[in-house]
Amino acid sequence: MAELGELETPIALTCTLCVWRVAESMARWLLAQPGMQGVRSINPVVGETNDGWALNAIRSLPVGDADVVRALEGARGGAVEEGSVGAGTGTVAYGWKGGIGTSSRVVASGPWTVGVLVQSNHGGWQDLHLGGVPVGRELGRHGVTPDRDKGASGSIMIVVATDAPLSDRNLRRLASRALFGLARTGAHADNGSGDYVIAFSTSPLVRREHAPGGSGSPPPRLATTELGNEAASELFEAVIDATEEAIDNSVLRATTVHGGYATVEALPLEEVRASLARHGVRPAH
Amino acid sequence: MAELGELETPIALTCTLCVWRVAESMARWLLAQPGMQGVRSINPVVGETNDGWALNAIRSLPVGDADVVRALEGARGGAVEEGSVGAGTGTVAYGWKGGIGTSSRVVASGPWTVGVLVQSNHGGWQDLHLGGVPVGRELGRHGVTPDRDKGASGSIMIVVATDAPLSDRNLRRLASRALFGLARTGAHADNGSGDYVIAFSTSPLVRREHAPGGSGSPPPRLATTELGNEAASELFEAVIDATEEAIDNSVLRATTVHGGYATVEALPLEEVRASLARHGVRPAH
Amino acid sequence: MAELGELETPIALTCTLCVWRVAESMARWLLAQPGMQGVRSINPVVGETNDGWALNAIRSLPVGDADVVRALEGARGGAVEEGSVGAGTGTVAYGWKGGIGTSSRVVASGPWTVGVLVQSNHGGWQDLHLGGVPVGRELGRHGVTPDRDKGASGSIMIVVATDAPLSDRNLRRLASRALFGLARTGAHADNGSGDYVIAFSTSPLVRREHAPGGSGSPPPRLATTELGNEAASELFEAVIDATEEAIDNSVLRATTVHGGYATVEALPLEEVRASLARHGVRPAH
Amino acid sequence: MAELGELETPIALTCTLCVWRVAESMARWLLAQPGMQGVRSINPVVGETNDGWALNAIRSLPVGDADVVRALEGARGGAVEEGSVGAGTGTVAYGWKGGIGTSSRVVASGPWTVGVLVQSNHGGWQDLHLGGVPVGRELGRHGVTPDRDKGASGSIMIVVATDAPLSDRNLRRLASRALFGLARTGAHADNGSGDYVIAFSTSPLVRREHAPGGSGSPPPRLATTELGNEAASELFEAVIDATEEAIDNSVLRATTVHGGYATVEALPLEEVRASLARHGVRPAH
Repeated sequence: MAELGELETPIALTCTLCVWRVAESMARWLLAQPGMQGVRSINPVVGETNDGWALNAIRSLPVGDADVVRALEGARGGAVEEGSVGAGTGTVAYGWKGGIGTSSRVVASGPWTVGVLVQSNHGGWQDLHLGGVPVGRELGRHGVTPDRDKGASGSIMIVVATDAPLSDRNLRRLASRALFGLARTGAHADNGSGDYVIAFSTSPLVRREHAPGGSGSPPPRLATTELGNEAASELFEAVIDATEEAIDNSVLRATTVHGGYATVEALPLEEVRASLARHGVRPAH
Repeated sequence: MAELGELETPIALTCTLCVWRVAESMARWLLAQPGMQGVRSINPVVGETNDGWALNAIRSLPVGDADVVRALEGARGGAVEEGSVGAGTGTVAYGWKGGIGTSSRVVASGPWTVGVLVQSNHGGWQDLHLGGVPVGRELGRHGVTPDRDKGASGSIMIVVATDAPLSDRNLRRLASRALFGLARTGAHADNGSGDYVIAFSTSPLVRREHAPGGSGSPPPRLATTELGNEAASELFEAVIDATEEAIDNSVLRATTVHGGYATVEALPLEEVRASLARHGVRPAH
Repeated sequence: MAELGELETPIALTCTLCVWRVAESMARWLLAQPGMQGVRSINPVVGETNDGWALNAIRSLPVGDADVVRALEGARGGAVEEGSVGAGTGTVAYGWKGGIGTSSRVVASGPWTVGVLVQSNHGGWQDLHLGGVPVGRELGRHGVTPDRDKGASGSIMIVVATDAPLSDRNLRRLASRALFGLARTGAHADNGSGDYVIAFSTSPLVRREHAPGGSGSPPPRLATTELGNEAASELFEAVIDATEEAIDNSVLRATTVHGGYATVEALPLEEVRASLARHGVRPAH
Repeated sequence: MAELGELETPIALTCTLCVWRVAESMARWLLAQPGMQGVRSINPVVGETNDGWALNAIRSLPVGDADVVRALEGARGGAVEEGSVGAGTGTVAYGWKGGIGTSSRVVASGPWTVGVLVQSNHGGWQDLHLGGVPVGRELGRHGVTPDRDKGASGSIMIVVATDAPLSDRNLRRLASRALFGLARTGAHADNGSGDYVIAFSTSPLVRREHAPGGSGSPPPRLATTELGNEAASELFEAVIDATEEAIDNSVLRATTVHGGYATVEALPLEEVRASLARHGVRPAH
């Protein structure tokens, strides 16, 4: 992606030791699609976090081909499920049940939408901030026993999508700003973290149409209409806000999960509300 | 620095159009030091922010050789001046007077100290957060008229020093985490920003002693004792906390400055305290 | 590897669409080794080139678990097989049969050895240079029909190993210089190429011993003795020479292969010798 | 440039310790141009090599404001002076007089031109290859006494210009391939080298027109028509060939220079021709 500025496949999310199976299953599924008979190269994109310490029997490599096909064929637009679902089923964030969260912002020019989806599996229990309030410390406890070791506080996977027509360079800049939203929730990107952000544009204005090609055809010119650098600032603000809220949602929507090694409790919402109220923060959720 | 992992000179801070004069003056000064007679290459490190829109007649390139020599020869240990001093004299942060701020944390293992010094010249007035509280919006105004254009909100220069014996790779990781502290204060790293972090270690355990060299001498082995990756997490947390507080200090210690084009007011501290109090935040300052 | 400076697993080489199976098989095999019962994270390293256009039925994902286990358990020291073997069985380089090639150099200080192994699958037939001689153009033909499209000339995977005690930064610099050896053989790193180099050190002086760890244990200090930057130059020269020769060997040792879609002939060695002789180059091989 | 994909100024070439003076002089000159009255930020681009060990009294910082203004105001199109001129006056390459060299290639599609200009100040005398022939070793001597220390073989600055409408990403890829041309001449990119390539496009199709701007104006869309990735391969081949030839020209056109510390002789052209002829290479020059 860095070299060619291109994203070839859907983005799949899974657990650390499941990455290779998901990549291969997605590749097999794509190779079998109509029109793909001549394709001999695919670069699947698969994100992961490691949920193997509390809930997921990760050493069994629990994801199979059928799971991947079901996910690909079941993909649809509309509202996104949040919480303890999909690749977020087994994750732990800030010492409580984490999972999938999403949020978006619309910026006036355009207008353009910036959407963020996270798979939260990071953070120590004392680190959690919601709306700037140190909710984790105020709760004074964590929802899983034993907690992770200090300094081994996991990772988060962040996916950013926008309909703004951005170049690959500006998409990379947009991705880097998502980390500012992560920081607001109290994260430290600890030593073992593999926090990762990927951003892509859905705009047809920057879509690349690969000509049928073949030898002899002239190299295609590519007419694109993209936003100038000056448009980036409001998109940066949008992605930061949306990332913070997506992480908030990932823990606020998660539900308690009983797994093989532990039970991971959902955040106690009443106590969270009380903590926010003490600090004069009115939750938007 | 990226290629060799080495910092050759002091780090100077100045204004954008003053960088080259400061670099040359520092190089001339270094070339004239005892023992430098044979030196024919120097890579000076100079950081900058652009304070030319409100207070500094930047187009006149106002820094001269004598200023640089005075700074180099006047450098000393001990308490660091903060606020509207040095390269922070003309800066504006979050719509109020910014400047130099500093803070540090000590981590238990070692113990090691992580110190941060910032030159704050960034942020829109509505963005300022102190201790998680949206102080900027609560103040409801800014301290300079007219304010910067939306989306042209300047830059911050951040210098991180530690006595922990870190490799250049771990110093780069440490530098990247300082941005998490910046994010907590409400920054967006706007399109035009050149936010920059540099980190270095003062530990003799990782210092490189260049042999007198000359042809024929064998390439030196370099015995270092550095901290393993596992030590990074607590240093990351320290640098994030210290960076947030250094930025806080840069605006809380700054004093009103009347310049050529505008007056930039210091943050109204009483109002800030009231805002924090409303949100149950007790300032450490 | 970039973040932590660590290589966790053996390096496997395979074909593009076989990467995920090889990674998973290697991970499963590692998880089953003695002492690995508690491991829940593995980052396997697998290199690839795409041999799917001439010889390999790549769309069938032809590598299976048993192949990977056999490779891992059959790995041994000593002389390295070259030519049309392993991941080089189906590759094409410079319009002729490519494959595995290896070479090494010893540098006087130390002494240290720099070894290079390549999987060559790149280059148009007119590009091949041996010892600076444009052998490809002098042969005037290629060994596979039809040839690849102009500008779709494949990739090379390069593995560099050294017993010199280098930091991860100097290993990355060493890796980047291997490309200079690639360039000498006439390569262009075409648009579709994924030319890749990985370098590692076998020296115990830079090996990281992970303490048993567990909560409460202090972060380990890591005493290493590494070569200073000044030692890099002679290693750079060594890796360039060895890479050039490893690529030469990959095509000179390859043998004709008849595959599903084509026959790819080995370089006609007599004609190559004649071409070199015309230019006063005496092959070392 | 990496962040915004923009080159704001002419590219100046000079000596290592002259960089800051050249940058400041160019900035002052630009600030004084018509229409620049409101400009308060400039990012000058200045390349350098270190010619201070043989010919240039570099510690005196010999370039002054007047030199810079003369260069800027004297810039013109047409044939480029080569050899011991400008920033190439004091350089040494492969143990002989180096300097400025240039070359270009035209690729059929478009057609597009790729031009390269180098400032050569690198390489040991035994390394020089012309047309694949080890001319340096065949000459058996070097043109400066004493020679540089082994492993301290200087740097080269390479500037690539094209009228092909390339994105900043593809310009960066183009720049990286220039190093393949450098490698063909025998270079090693030694430890102390700061070999650098910068590439830019002159095409109006990718030029960014900054709107007058001001607050309230909508962020501009930027309509560009750029070449697709598929066009890159032939441009890569062009830049490699042109870089090799530009370096060849830099040493073949250089003339003997007597400096403060040494005399650096030009390559003995008759002997070079004889060496090439022995290897059946007919020089194009």
